Amino acid sequence: MKKNFLALVLAAGEGTRFQSEKTKILHPILGKSMLRLVLDSVLALKPEKVILVVGHQKEAVIEEAGSLNVEPIHQKVLLGAAYAGQAARGVLKDFEDRDLLILGANLPLVRPPAMKSLLAFHRKRGNSATWLDSTLEAPDAFLFKIKDLLRALPKALSGSPKGPSGFEAVVEALAQAGKKVEAFRPPDSEDFLPVRTRHDLSRAFSVLRERKMQDLAGQGVTVYDPSSTWIDLDVRIGRDCSVYPAVMIEGRTSIGSRCAIYPGVHIINSQIGSRVRLYGSSVIDGATVEDDAQVGPFARLRPKTILRAGSRVGNFVELKNTDLGKGSKAQHLSYLGDSEIHEDVNIGAGTITCNYDGVRKNKTTIEAGAFIGSGTQLVAPVTIGRGAYVGAGSVITKNVSPEALAVARGRQIEKPGWARRKKAKG
Amino acid sequence: MKKNFLALVLAAGEGTRFQSEKTKILHPILGKSMLRLVLDSVLALKPEKVILVVGHQKEAVIEEAGSLNVEPIHQKVLLGAAYAGQAARGVLKDFEDRDLLILGANLPLVRPPAMKSLLAFHRKRGNSATWLDSTLEAPDAFLFKIKDLLRALPKALSGSPKGPSGFEAVVEALAQAGKKVEAFRPPDSEDFLPVRTRHDLSRAFSVLRERKMQDLAGQGVTVYDPSSTWIDLDVRIGRDCSVYPAVMIEGRTSIGSRCAIYPGVHIINSQIGSRVRLYGSSVIDGATVEDDAQVGPFARLRPKTILRAGSRVGNFVELKNTDLGKGSKAQHLSYLGDSEIHEDVNIGAGTITCNYDGVRKNKTTIEAGAFIGSGTQLVAPVTIGRGAYVGAGSVITKNVSPEALAVARGRQIEKPGWARRKKAKG
Amino acid sequence: MKKNFLALVLAAGEGTRFQSEKTKILHPILGKSMLRLVLDSVLALKPEKVILVVGHQKEAVIEEAGSLNVEPIHQKVLLGAAYAGQAARGVLKDFEDRDLLILGANLPLVRPPAMKSLLAFHRKRGNSATWLDSTLEAPDAFLFKIKDLLRALPKALSGSPKGPSGFEAVVEALAQAGKKVEAFRPPDSEDFLPVRTRHDLSRAFSVLRERKMQDLAGQGVTVYDPSSTWIDLDVRIGRDCSVYPAVMIEGRTSIGSRCAIYPGVHIINSQIGSRVRLYGSSVIDGATVEDDAQVGPFARLRPKTILRAGSRVGNFVELKNTDLGKGSKAQHLSYLGDSEIHEDVNIGAGTITCNYDGVRKNKTTIEAGAFIGSGTQLVAPVTIGRGAYVGAGSVITKNVSPEALAVARGRQIEKPGWARRKKAKG
Repeated sequence: MKKNFLALVLAAGEGTRFQSEKTKILHPILGKSMLRLVLDSVLALKPEKVILVVGHQKEAVIEEAGSLNVEPIHQKVLLGAAYAGQAARGVLKDFEDRDLLILGANLPLVRPPAMKSLLAFHRKRGNSATWLDSTLEAPDAFLFKIKDLLRALPKALSGSPKGPSGFEAVVEALAQAGKKVEAFRPPDSEDFLPVRTRHDLSRAFSVLRERKMQDLAGQGVTVYDPSSTWIDLDVRIGRDCSVYPAVMIEGRTSIGSRCAIYPGVHIINSQIGSRVRLYGSSVIDGATVEDDAQVGPFARLRPKTILRAGSRVGNFVELKNTDLGKGSKAQHLSYLGDSEIHEDVNIGAGTITCNYDGVRKNKTTIEAGAFIGSGTQLVAPVTIGRGAYVGAGSVITKNVSPEALAVARGRQIEKPGWARRKKAKG
Repeated sequence: MKKNFLALVLAAGEGTRFQSEKTKILHPILGKSMLRLVLDSVLALKPEKVILVVGHQKEAVIEEAGSLNVEPIHQKVLLGAAYAGQAARGVLKDFEDRDLLILGANLPLVRPPAMKSLLAFHRKRGNSATWLDSTLEAPDAFLFKIKDLLRALPKALSGSPKGPSGFEAVVEALAQAGKKVEAFRPPDSEDFLPVRTRHDLSRAFSVLRERKMQDLAGQGVTVYDPSSTWIDLDVRIGRDCSVYPAVMIEGRTSIGSRCAIYPGVHIINSQIGSRVRLYGSSVIDGATVEDDAQVGPFARLRPKTILRAGSRVGNFVELKNTDLGKGSKAQHLSYLGDSEIHEDVNIGAGTITCNYDGVRKNKTTIEAGAFIGSGTQLVAPVTIGRGAYVGAGSVITKNVSPEALAVARGRQIEKPGWARRKKAKG
Repeated sequence: MKKNFLALVLAAGEGTRFQSEKTKILHPILGKSMLRLVLDSVLALKPEKVILVVGHQKEAVIEEAGSLNVEPIHQKVLLGAAYAGQAARGVLKDFEDRDLLILGANLPLVRPPAMKSLLAFHRKRGNSATWLDSTLEAPDAFLFKIKDLLRALPKALSGSPKGPSGFEAVVEALAQAGKKVEAFRPPDSEDFLPVRTRHDLSRAFSVLRERKMQDLAGQGVTVYDPSSTWIDLDVRIGRDCSVYPAVMIEGRTSIGSRCAIYPGVHIINSQIGSRVRLYGSSVIDGATVEDDAQVGPFARLRPKTILRAGSRVGNFVELKNTDLGKGSKAQHLSYLGDSEIHEDVNIGAGTITCNYDGVRKNKTTIEAGAFIGSGTQLVAPVTIGRGAYVGAGSVITKNVSPEALAVARGRQIEKPGWARRKKAKG
């Protein structure tokens, strides 16, 4: 395309049919708001300028556009999309010889090739205005010669005093003025599916999911059951990973190669190495899991947790702000918080770091090769020395020396026949 | 409709192709039996009378109809649906000038508008008999002039000595007698999909689910992935709730507005307030969760549990018959049963109420502002006073005074070098 | 079919579009590799001989064929499928009067009737060669008169010096030689869907799943939501079982009748009796669960676990190599490993068998009718006698006599006002 063009993204409306406190276009699909999806696609076409027309909840809309190279313009009159054109008049008048691509921010499925087709059609046919011909109510995509648009706007806005005015009215005015206006029927109308209701949102979710799954398949990832799997658009997964049903992977997560992710695992903003096995129903949020580690089933890794290479976390185990060393294991029913655990440590079943004393959070350190017996409470701040051994069922309140045995529990006593007598009494 | 009509619901058959001990029409879909779904739809049309023809497992069928305004009639001869007409003869003869709508109880998808169309067609065309024309084997819906039906029945029942007789035989007899009989092709045949096999049941489940999802979308609920979500028909959910994949919500559950229900959560007969967050895989059964509370992941709330406003229950925590006060927290690996916990209490990780002594269940009371250290057993009946502090790893068998510290654990001893010697021995 | 035929299964290619370290045809679908699925179908037709042409990763491919009655032949030149014919020449020349069915091992959906149709068409039409006419790129199924094939092969292999040669080239050569060659369009092309990409694998998974679900429905099993359920092809399930969404059942698992399997349950290679209830998200691997037992939610049964009739395992409980006796219960937050637990034992919440001392695994025995108080550690090897009672929070290191009470915990002390003073200090 020799001559460049401008883009106008319509993000001022409330989307009342969506029935939400939050303006419709800020609702996310697979980790990105609808607005962001549209802006990313539009910016990929490198238009000369992208105007973002805001109105309802405008601060939130502008914030969502964030550092993107767009120019927000405030549409004060929310009586119809054509008022967005009016609001942008000041900017548009400096670009009278250009074309303007107008897109609703409720078109989260639109991709660059679809917009290019629309643009190419408009130019090849020498149209003054082109609109997207879909079987749906009102079109959500237009192309105008800017000069013609600016001239026709006043008439379009005055002509319909009773109801909202869309760009259809501008097209109508141009047609009456003898200009060439024409509909464009896209080859694959999926791209221009507008989201008006929450049901449309579910459908758009389904289409974007299918696209992501196609991408992953091409990269050598097996997702056995795409229709029950949720993988955010920004997630990266390496070759020969297997993803079982009902898995959800969100945010800025990256996963190495040859990992197995079992049913019901939920990963958020985490870095996973290679050859990692994540067993069923585990929740991993803001954590780092290095190569060859194993997690779950029923494990929960909370933010700032690091599992070093080859370490293992088992069932009903929670880690928070904890660094678990190479080859160390915490396999059953434990809570490890604010801890630094060195390599080759064995954490017995039912171990609890008592990191909170009601006032502040305190740190637990367990040095390399230590063995923590089952059912132990480690009252932080406390350090277990290298190679030390803590007896099962101990409440450890003082540091344990390297290579020592520490025990803190009651002596076992027995009352013969007590249970028989108790039963007899009933 | 000026003249009223009667309805006859066929619920006598066994449904052998369904391969079940329980009669087919009692199997549930999204929380309601097929029978109940049909009866609810038929009753919504307000017919003059609804006759429920029972036979196989008739006590269970009548019980399922419960307090609904239907008249059960026992069909003793189970050789075909037309014998249901014969069984109802006594009732029908008092309504000779009326029409009779006959419906199989295996039509769980039928809705009032579809039946109204059938009825309107039958009347407008002045038919003696109208049957539903579907591409499926035998029709499961008919309309007859009652007078004509009663006259044709004897012939229909005598005419087919070898096999089961359906109402087709009655239609045939009327046609031979020169009466006007006609097929009706419904505009949307989905309503009349009969359930004959378990595979049909899955399909009916899928259709009812889609209808429920459409309703929820219209009410401002986002269900991201309807195809992996199960929400019973009677469940109510407020505006701006987000429901993630693989969620199951059953029974008489109501949920306020702006809640987030994360993947794999399972809710049964519970009352959930507004702005509640239910994290992944939690199971909530017969519980009340007030506004702003947080639950899970991996939490289990059993019957008679109340989470007061702003309270929090975390991972691997089970509550049963327990009232958790405002702002109180039980975040990790705990079992709280038969307990009354007042406001602003902190329950440490690994806390267990020992509510069962082998004979009876006993109560635990924890007063406001108390702090229960991690790894504590509270041997019920026991009361922890207001503002008291229980040291980690204690076994509490006696009441603790308000503001006191209670500790019950062994003294820590250390054997230097023990671990080194143990390893040396191997 | 009077005259018999031979089959040649193409299993030499790498499947580069699949993007995998492991050769494509060894990837599994619902518990069986694609290769195995094809071989099972082909062998069901009882051909005179099945030739398995191997090349890429040939040891693994031959191992997967295992004890099946197939003859592996090594295709050294991997420039196209027709070289498989060349490699098999030595075997084929003894069967010149037979037909040869050639099938890609990437056709996991093929069933005997579809192959029979192809064979019948080929013979009835008297063809020299028949190929499968699909809308897809290159055909993956052929029938040849062996004599004609052998004669045409050299020409076919010499004719295309630039690229890979498939059996299309042989068909071409036969056509040029005036032989009768013809396409066969199968009535249901689903059977011949080739798996080339991981996306195709997902589709094949979906088709095989639907077939399995149809089978189960016919056997009286309710799978409410087939599209979110994974049941391996070899799994057997009895009448009147209900399977809820997001369930995964793998391997050689058998399940009796009238069981309920709740959402998110994952079963691997286990034997489940009748009337068993498996509550949500439980993981059951290599275990035996007898009649009327209850498991979960959030339970994990690891290999060599046996739950005897009527026993119960509850939430956040892990069993490994443990035999839980008739009517015994472990309902909350426990780890039972390497244990033998007799009948009618009550295991309190938070019970842990300390089976590992850092060197070896030791056994715990709990005799009939014993009561283990909550929060108890049993330091193995240890035996709790018949009818004995262990006080809550005990660390048991010595055997307990039958009918005795054993307690091992610290004495409770109280410091009045301590908590108030602590708060005052802040």
